[in-house]
Amino acid sequence: MQPVSILQSQVSVENIRAAREVVYRTVKPTALIEYPLLTREIGARVFLKHENHQVTGAFKIRGGLNFMSHFAQERTHDGVITATRGNHGQSVALAASIHSIPATIVVPFGNNPEKNEAMRAYGARLIEYGRDFDEAREEVQRLSNAENLRYIHSANEPHLINGVGTYALEIIESLRERGEKADVIFVPIGLGSGVCGVITAFRALSPETKIIGVQAEGAPSIYLSWKEGRIVETKDAHTFADGVATRVPARLTFDIIRGSEGREGVDEVVLVSDSEIIRAIRLLWRTTHNLVEGAGAVATAATIKLRERLEGQNVVNVLTGANLDTDSISKIFS
Amino acid sequence: MQPVSILQSQVSVENIRAAREVVYRTVKPTALIEYPLLTREIGARVFLKHENHQVTGAFKIRGGLNFMSHFAQERTHDGVITATRGNHGQSVALAASIHSIPATIVVPFGNNPEKNEAMRAYGARLIEYGRDFDEAREEVQRLSNAENLRYIHSANEPHLINGVGTYALEIIESLRERGEKADVIFVPIGLGSGVCGVITAFRALSPETKIIGVQAEGAPSIYLSWKEGRIVETKDAHTFADGVATRVPARLTFDIIRGSEGREGVDEVVLVSDSEIIRAIRLLWRTTHNLVEGAGAVATAATIKLRERLEGQNVVNVLTGANLDTDSISKIFS
Repeated sequence: MQPVSILQSQVSVENIRAAREVVYRTVKPTALIEYPLLTREIGARVFLKHENHQVTGAFKIRGGLNFMSHFAQERTHDGVITATRGNHGQSVALAASIHSIPATIVVPFGNNPEKNEAMRAYGARLIEYGRDFDEAREEVQRLSNAENLRYIHSANEPHLINGVGTYALEIIESLRERGEKADVIFVPIGLGSGVCGVITAFRALSPETKIIGVQAEGAPSIYLSWKEGRIVETKDAHTFADGVATRVPARLTFDIIRGSEGREGVDEVVLVSDSEIIRAIRLLWRTTHNLVEGAGAVATAATIKLRERLEGQNVVNVLTGANLDTDSISKIFS
Repeated sequence: MQPVSILQSQVSVENIRAAREVVYRTVKPTALIEYPLLTREIGARVFLKHENHQVTGAFKIRGGLNFMSHFAQERTHDGVITATRGNHGQSVALAASIHSIPATIVVPFGNNPEKNEAMRAYGARLIEYGRDFDEAREEVQRLSNAENLRYIHSANEPHLINGVGTYALEIIESLRERGEKADVIFVPIGLGSGVCGVITAFRALSPETKIIGVQAEGAPSIYLSWKEGRIVETKDAHTFADGVATRVPARLTFDIIRGSEGREGVDEVVLVSDSEIIRAIRLLWRTTHNLVEGAGAVATAATIKLRERLEGQNVVNVLTGANLDTDSISKIFS
């Protein structure tokens, strides 16, 4: 086991608790709901954490709000900049607008127009640049130097992880109020800020809960890295669930996912196929009337896949986001 | 103006406040969110009240919980019974199950199987009877006598109205926290329990807000009744939005909607067509990633229709429910 890094030591349950005060200035806790039809279908009690009901339609805003509150005090740069294809960008744009901080978002050409429009609507300067994410990142580098902008990586930022960890506290407390606790929690992994918040909160406050990270079969970089104990990049990331379409793992989140001295990581990482994800989207609609994006359904897809070993347990699924493109709806429900 | 009836006098802001304690034992406040894309599209600030995120997928549960809490104390009958095609039934079924009260729901043959399954899943006895709602009601009458069951009308019950009125309190307080208030609130009217909760809370606490009720063009019984100042039934109720497909107005809610001595009713009732409702469902999806049922979109449909006179105002839309049948999705998005 390797020692805990300085960045890692800034991710803590104390800092998640502190983040909560900041986050709740703008957003409210989301619901944790058990739906009897879903519970019956799975054969285990399934509690859905509704980050798909969150402002901006995804859990990311919790991290953005926490980050920007610190940045607004320090003002080390003249603004912020990031590269993203969606939810992280909406989070940065909205959180920056609250503190009147100029925000720049760089997206590759051909990025989904609905997502671009949403980021612009929160007041961000949106720049289209490059053929893919890596080329967009080059423009971020150039602009951040030229205009003194603070680059916000979507995962290697303790304030983001502490911010999104607030949903994990809500899950633990909401179950406790009902006299329950989670046997297993399934969490989607894109770059891992969400699962790292869950690891940090649950290891401290609900250590008996198994934490299972979920990736898509066509984008298994964290799965492979976790298995091999070192960062493994993949050449491509092919999945319809763009929120988990990661090719290159991030250092900070990978270290937390794997675990370090005295800090346990996830119990397991599992993979689900795109057709399993689509099946989960349909099941969630039919049994709960929640329509979620691909990444928002991978936890449930994994729950369906592992249902035999979950029998009779208390299972939490984190529905991380709702931002499904309109075009996808008719494909999924036709 | 006619005098306030005894039932009417049981609907009050004090009783809504009391209901809140009961309701919050089981459910949490729902969010009130402004989406910049929607605001831009309408040309007014639009705040969505997310009862589509509510447990059971609709605002009705608030009323069911309040009703059943009183019933559990009084136990005047051996159980409860109602006739419904959907959201009211899920509310009664879940609320009854919390107090271990036997619940019977009668639906006409051919009722949507998804809705039936949901009511059964909350533990209700579901009985299919009759060709339509009126025939189903006859069976309710017979069973309630034979088995000593308390019939729960979906509107003529002060406890239901006080319960659902809790969402109106949340809207007022949530806006106040932001230093805002509503200039106009649009509320769907089926039988009117929701709008009566809004009237009661807003007239007491936010009297400057205009209250606009919305019905479907193909099911305008409350609209006609409000215009004529007396209860008008329609022969049919033709709308895709089954949550507002009312043919026969209810006495208690109509009296509150129209207003009585010293109690002002709604400012206006407007009608929207099915194609306007479908357009609103699509707009809500595109700008906010919330997929709602037909009735859940009529407030927004009316907002689109009246946008010219709303310019620059603070507008609230109540998204009353999410329970759209799966079959309808592909029709709406094809």
